[in-house]
Amino acid sequence: MERIMMAHGSGGRLSHELIRTLFQRYLGNSYLDQMNDATFLPGQAQLAVTTDSFVISPLFFRGGNIGKLAVCGTVNDLAVSGASPRFLTLALILEEGLPLVELEEIIKSIAETALEAGVAIVCGDTKVVERGSADRIFINTTGIGYITNRFLGPQRIEPGDVILSTGTIGDHEIAILSEREGLEFETPVKSDCAPLNGLIDSFFQPEVKCMRDPTRGGVATTLNELAQQAGVSMLLQEEALPINPGVEGACAMLGLDPLYLANEGKALVIASPEAAGSLLQAMREHPLGKNAAQIGKVLEGKPGLVLLETPLGGKRILGMLEGEHLPRIC
Amino acid sequence: MERIMMAHGSGGRLSHELIRTLFQRYLGNSYLDQMNDATFLPGQAQLAVTTDSFVISPLFFRGGNIGKLAVCGTVNDLAVSGASPRFLTLALILEEGLPLVELEEIIKSIAETALEAGVAIVCGDTKVVERGSADRIFINTTGIGYITNRFLGPQRIEPGDVILSTGTIGDHEIAILSEREGLEFETPVKSDCAPLNGLIDSFFQPEVKCMRDPTRGGVATTLNELAQQAGVSMLLQEEALPINPGVEGACAMLGLDPLYLANEGKALVIASPEAAGSLLQAMREHPLGKNAAQIGKVLEGKPGLVLLETPLGGKRILGMLEGEHLPRIC
Repeated sequence: MERIMMAHGSGGRLSHELIRTLFQRYLGNSYLDQMNDATFLPGQAQLAVTTDSFVISPLFFRGGNIGKLAVCGTVNDLAVSGASPRFLTLALILEEGLPLVELEEIIKSIAETALEAGVAIVCGDTKVVERGSADRIFINTTGIGYITNRFLGPQRIEPGDVILSTGTIGDHEIAILSEREGLEFETPVKSDCAPLNGLIDSFFQPEVKCMRDPTRGGVATTLNELAQQAGVSMLLQEEALPINPGVEGACAMLGLDPLYLANEGKALVIASPEAAGSLLQAMREHPLGKNAAQIGKVLEGKPGLVLLETPLGGKRILGMLEGEHLPRIC
Repeated sequence: MERIMMAHGSGGRLSHELIRTLFQRYLGNSYLDQMNDATFLPGQAQLAVTTDSFVISPLFFRGGNIGKLAVCGTVNDLAVSGASPRFLTLALILEEGLPLVELEEIIKSIAETALEAGVAIVCGDTKVVERGSADRIFINTTGIGYITNRFLGPQRIEPGDVILSTGTIGDHEIAILSEREGLEFETPVKSDCAPLNGLIDSFFQPEVKCMRDPTRGGVATTLNELAQQAGVSMLLQEEALPINPGVEGACAMLGLDPLYLANEGKALVIASPEAAGSLLQAMREHPLGKNAAQIGKVLEGKPGLVLLETPLGGKRILGMLEGEHLPRIC
């Protein structure tokens, strides 16, 4: 089986061969084919940009792999910011010895997911490090998006606003955990890893005030950040949280709180209360939003305070994630 | 001594603390301070973009460190493409246990070099992997530049054009090699690592047709790429190559060819012959160009062929770098 060698990162002949036979073959487009030190792109007066590195382990999991994730993660950061994702850069750090078939599988997923999300891979970089100096493959994607006329931000959040989730929470982290630990649940859990720009385009209306994707740290940490930035309190209803049975079972068994689990294909949407019904309806018509639900609301009160109301009416404070749940979840 | 812990990459409280006490402290600006999933930037109708990961070992070397290099490498790819570098993204992969003082030193260098190059760090990402899963720190920078009215590219190269180097060759790779192997040369060699956009702005004129920075693979590999893309031959004069005495000595001792050694602060400039004199004069007036020299010329002949003429008049073919000189040079 052919494997990555140090010379694939030399900048010499083998680097060129890898570019031609793998990257151009699967990812080629008029931008990438410029093959210069920098790629020239059409821009516009206002841009959105975001960067993310992916170090997930295992590389392949139920519902995706590190390549798919590297496209979704960056596309979603642009999409929840109200931008239209257009261009991605792709930088790989490869460990000597990585089987080329695994790299090819990852590159194929990147190509497929980029196509689904409507973004082009416009430039790239490959480095190879000695066996033992990295764990198989790390991927960085940086995304450039065009600004739309969506004006979003925590400063728009007001008491009375509703908090919606586009779907079930905790799927990604439980999928990775079960893959990594070899746990078998009755209902196998699949990562929710997906590009959200299509879903967001389908439900967006000006009454949406702020969106975030609750990745590392989960819904609770993301809402803590927003509540702090907006200077408001938030109240979640425990019984309103959409949770897959497999995730519920895994959390019960392992003592995990789904509100702190990472998601890779969900958005939290904060909107004016009068728009809640039509937003939820539009979300549910999209395949990625069929489990959308209102999970809470924004309150006046101590800035930054996020509370969870239990079915019996008790309330507990949801702080930010302390320590580390599960390393290398993305 | 405080060290990076897995929880610094959790997305939770310690991640936020690291962002506040280190990244915002040294790198803060109005873009970075937006603190959203994506950063909004002023753009323009045409953009240049490039991405690079840095895995150099050792992290600190004579003339720079991985942080300075991560800014220079990306700034230079934009600058040689004829773009004006404006924005950088910064993504870190940290190994658990990295001393915080080393990270701080690197972040300080990033801040200083970004200031020197006139670019702003606009967004970032931090991942932490377990001890043994990465080698201390890997950095990705992605750069966005504005297009100037500089029309550059290998398609503009013609027989008769001159090939200039903005300075001595091989310094970066010999500096890293001697650091890594504990070699002591009579004349210590310093990496040439520097942002080139200021130098390029100082000498640029429309007679410049193409520029490249000869990093991995060195001058020989870079000119092979250009000769292929332009469909021309090139002839270098061995005695015209500007080489520091320390690099010359190290190459003689170790049997290395300076034409294949990586540079991190040099540009190769291909221009109309009538501009050679004024370009060299302007280059030499800038601190980063004081050893600028004409090193060869473009010829009709076999497309892609690069030849070296020795002082005695013999010629040998310079191919692309085969295999790997020295891994993790950048």
